[in-house]
Amino acid sequence: MRKFAAEKTRKVLAHRKFFNSVVQHPTASLSSSSSSSSSSSLSRKSLPHSSAAFLSRLLNTSASPNPSSSDSDSMASDYSSTPVKIDTINPKVLECEYAVRGEIVSLAQKLQEDLKINPDSHPFDEILYCNIGNPQSLGQQPITFFREVLALCDHPSILDKSETQGLFSADSIERAFQILDQIPGRATGAYSHSQGIKGLRDAICAGIEARDGFPADPNDIFLTDGASPAVHMMMQLLIRSKNDGILCPIPQYPLYSASIALHGGTLVPYYLDEATGWGMEISELKNQLETAKSKGISVRALVVINPGNPTGQVLAENNQQQIVDFCKKEGLVLLADEVYQENIYVPDKQFHSFKKVARSMGYGERDISLVSFQSVSKGYYGECGKRGGYMEITGFSPEIREQIYKVASVNLCSNISGQILASLVMNPPKVGDESYESYFAEKDAILSSLARRAKSLEEALNGLEGVSCNRAEGAMYLFPRIDLPKKAIEAAEAAKMAPDAFYAKRLLNATGIVVVPGSGFRQVPGTWHFRCTILPQEDRIPAIISRLTDFHKGFMDEFRA
Amino acid sequence: MRKFAAEKTRKVLAHRKFFNSVVQHPTASLSSSSSSSSSSSLSRKSLPHSSAAFLSRLLNTSASPNPSSSDSDSMASDYSSTPVKIDTINPKVLECEYAVRGEIVSLAQKLQEDLKINPDSHPFDEILYCNIGNPQSLGQQPITFFREVLALCDHPSILDKSETQGLFSADSIERAFQILDQIPGRATGAYSHSQGIKGLRDAICAGIEARDGFPADPNDIFLTDGASPAVHMMMQLLIRSKNDGILCPIPQYPLYSASIALHGGTLVPYYLDEATGWGMEISELKNQLETAKSKGISVRALVVINPGNPTGQVLAENNQQQIVDFCKKEGLVLLADEVYQENIYVPDKQFHSFKKVARSMGYGERDISLVSFQSVSKGYYGECGKRGGYMEITGFSPEIREQIYKVASVNLCSNISGQILASLVMNPPKVGDESYESYFAEKDAILSSLARRAKSLEEALNGLEGVSCNRAEGAMYLFPRIDLPKKAIEAAEAAKMAPDAFYAKRLLNATGIVVVPGSGFRQVPGTWHFRCTILPQEDRIPAIISRLTDFHKGFMDEFRA
Repeated sequence: MRKFAAEKTRKVLAHRKFFNSVVQHPTASLSSSSSSSSSSSLSRKSLPHSSAAFLSRLLNTSASPNPSSSDSDSMASDYSSTPVKIDTINPKVLECEYAVRGEIVSLAQKLQEDLKINPDSHPFDEILYCNIGNPQSLGQQPITFFREVLALCDHPSILDKSETQGLFSADSIERAFQILDQIPGRATGAYSHSQGIKGLRDAICAGIEARDGFPADPNDIFLTDGASPAVHMMMQLLIRSKNDGILCPIPQYPLYSASIALHGGTLVPYYLDEATGWGMEISELKNQLETAKSKGISVRALVVINPGNPTGQVLAENNQQQIVDFCKKEGLVLLADEVYQENIYVPDKQFHSFKKVARSMGYGERDISLVSFQSVSKGYYGECGKRGGYMEITGFSPEIREQIYKVASVNLCSNISGQILASLVMNPPKVGDESYESYFAEKDAILSSLARRAKSLEEALNGLEGVSCNRAEGAMYLFPRIDLPKKAIEAAEAAKMAPDAFYAKRLLNATGIVVVPGSGFRQVPGTWHFRCTILPQEDRIPAIISRLTDFHKGFMDEFRA
Repeated sequence: MRKFAAEKTRKVLAHRKFFNSVVQHPTASLSSSSSSSSSSSLSRKSLPHSSAAFLSRLLNTSASPNPSSSDSDSMASDYSSTPVKIDTINPKVLECEYAVRGEIVSLAQKLQEDLKINPDSHPFDEILYCNIGNPQSLGQQPITFFREVLALCDHPSILDKSETQGLFSADSIERAFQILDQIPGRATGAYSHSQGIKGLRDAICAGIEARDGFPADPNDIFLTDGASPAVHMMMQLLIRSKNDGILCPIPQYPLYSASIALHGGTLVPYYLDEATGWGMEISELKNQLETAKSKGISVRALVVINPGNPTGQVLAENNQQQIVDFCKKEGLVLLADEVYQENIYVPDKQFHSFKKVARSMGYGERDISLVSFQSVSKGYYGECGKRGGYMEITGFSPEIREQIYKVASVNLCSNISGQILASLVMNPPKVGDESYESYFAEKDAILSSLARRAKSLEEALNGLEGVSCNRAEGAMYLFPRIDLPKKAIEAAEAAKMAPDAFYAKRLLNATGIVVVPGSGFRQVPGTWHFRCTILPQEDRIPAIISRLTDFHKGFMDEFRA
């Protein structure tokens, strides 16, 4: 599939590059620098094709006068005198795949541009991005208290002004003062300690302790720009070569496969059992571990995503205990992706952190190596753009911690707003605080609506011919299985696409709904899925269901044997 | 030196870990979670040593009751049942060094803790961090306009409130509206395009065009969390193995050596000529390139830091032209670290971007591969904690750009506040804007004060016995050379330290001034330097000079032959 994604992107880029080649040359007319931030792109857009073609000929480049025509190969060859070629870059980069922003999303962006130019260009009014857990892009509002505190910390000189009292809640002002007091010189514009501001790590630990009932230590916390850099850091530490393996669930969030590929390791898959609601079987873990060992792979760590992404399951506590025992027995680092810890939608399931489970079993700091990843991007807060998060590392010797600290230091620190936000999500307003009621109302509205959306979409999907969808217990996704008709699979093969990518592309072209093909997450061979977020605003859900249902019926009719 | 840094850190960590081991065990008393963010650390601190020792014995660990005693080896061995050992981690991580936050800084942090507990514990009142370009940590105030806009974008719901007019300038409100209009759904909490918000990239390009007089394309801009991740991204792309080399200046900012080590490549050094004000000689570049080639190294890129870090020189335009020609001729990617582009302190030097120089020479998009790194952390803004920055990549084919885009996508996007700030520093208030006068006054005060500080420190250093310091033309550092007495070098050898590290440690212990030993940046063998920032506030400079002078006299007297 990568090859096709590559071709697609190349075409899009070749199109863009066509204009670049014209405006970037010194002899081309220079758009004047201006105070309007969009002037340069506007002047570029207004450059007519014919003059672009003229300049192109003048400059003796091979750019086609019609940028929509496919001459990507000749475009690429224009770079023959530049030193970096596709076969001279790091092959690990080439190997890396990241479907969440892959081919389907590139197509969606193109359709969105089409709609801007001509609203009637497609049989829908807008693109609905259900490909990515990005709540605020679909209209979810940020939690007011969090944003109040962030704004005050960004501009502390208003803290003492009288107007501020009218604009901000009293406890947000107080919290901003408390946070600033934790920062030497109140300098939110200074690099912090490489692990993050100590006082914020204290606050995060207080939150972890309240959640788990076990102590947490600020020296164990590394604040990061979202959870992704933390995952990279651990992969970088653990992976020495292709002979080092990381056990990952299949289906998995492609950050893991991408990160393992970039660091040159081997993904050792273990399959979640769709028949038991994406259950995690220890026997499967053992089998895969033994298989990997027999191939000479040294398995270093086990990745568990709980609640699951893309699968939405929430692990039962006894299952978690088995996993902890398995890691202990097999000498594996347990990498626990717990970024969806606040996203639980069913009354019979609860989130338990792996650290709590391990400590409850009597395993202490020196018994088991455990990393918990948390992010401000998920939960009811959904602050993806703030890039805040942390990892809590326990069970690593001082000399290993020193190495992790050093790697963190090379990038100096994570962004301070993200650090502050991470401390806030782990320590939100408490009963009695001025903001508590409004905070709780906002949180509750978001989470209960997400639960209803999950339920509606799940039921709708289960009503479609050939589709079965497990219960969305948590996280932000549904991962329905689609039994595609033989003719659809053949049509996909003819189009050189994975069948679920073929389905997803058809869905996008017909409805504007963007989902990620299951093949982007890996899946049991011969089964087909897609991942769809539950994040569109609630009043849009009926229309989405209706569009999806109509498309699906048409698709099945078209390809029925 | 790494070994000694490692030992030091291990001791510090072992000390911390001692307390962890006690409070983290489930049977230890649990500090109650509380709304006070510092309660957990306070309760930990108040745990008396004797009960810690008791619990330690109870738990059969080997923790010493006296955490200041050095039993780090036995502490480390307590982790014998955890899977990750120092000899089983990625050796590239072990190889990486990062002196800016190395041994001296760990010692400084320890001394600062001492002073907190007992202000009379050392012969100084405070630690002066001159080790790192972190202006706001030393009292530099952020530019008001930038912070106003950031605060408004963080909490857009106050934009329409009447009180806001009293707190914020009219043009900051207008700018916030403009920026929010560039963000789909005004969602500053959403992931953006992997390269950053398109409208912000347009604004950055307008700034680049105004600076250079040549067009810039928003498709060439990748917004990043500071410049460091951008450097990593390029190293990741270019380095395949130890046989790939990157030409780096010596002395160099250790981000480069660290990043090359982490990605498994080879740093090919070229020496700046201290005698000609850290001049960059093409003959030296050629020699080093040929030497590397003769060893089978494939040299991929040339790193140039302009203005220089740690050396502070500003390249002359004709020298830049030579460098561009050299890269063109040798087929090297030019990686231009231009983060200090606003930090020029002498009237006879000016900043020219390498892109402007290349375009002025007639080299177009397809003639030369050029990456320019910029950051919000430096300049007169010094917003290190915001982690904003970008790279502008030109001269890469569409298929290579696709790979860079993919790597950027794996981490989704850089933080939106940092993105906004990057657009602001490249498009500050213009003449006629309400904020322009106050903005200009703030900017001018900072830059002219930095120029005076650079001059005062440079003169003072040149007045010291055995010290010679080149002119600080730009950036934020002085990099004086110290001719150490033979006896001092012997004493350093006896202490198993590099002589300049020995000097820096003595300086810290005597004065509280933190500098980075030249050995952390590499230097001509047999020469010794240190890097000292010019960032302490101006009213402190005389006292710093006096402390430094007194220390230096004493040091030279002590070790005079």
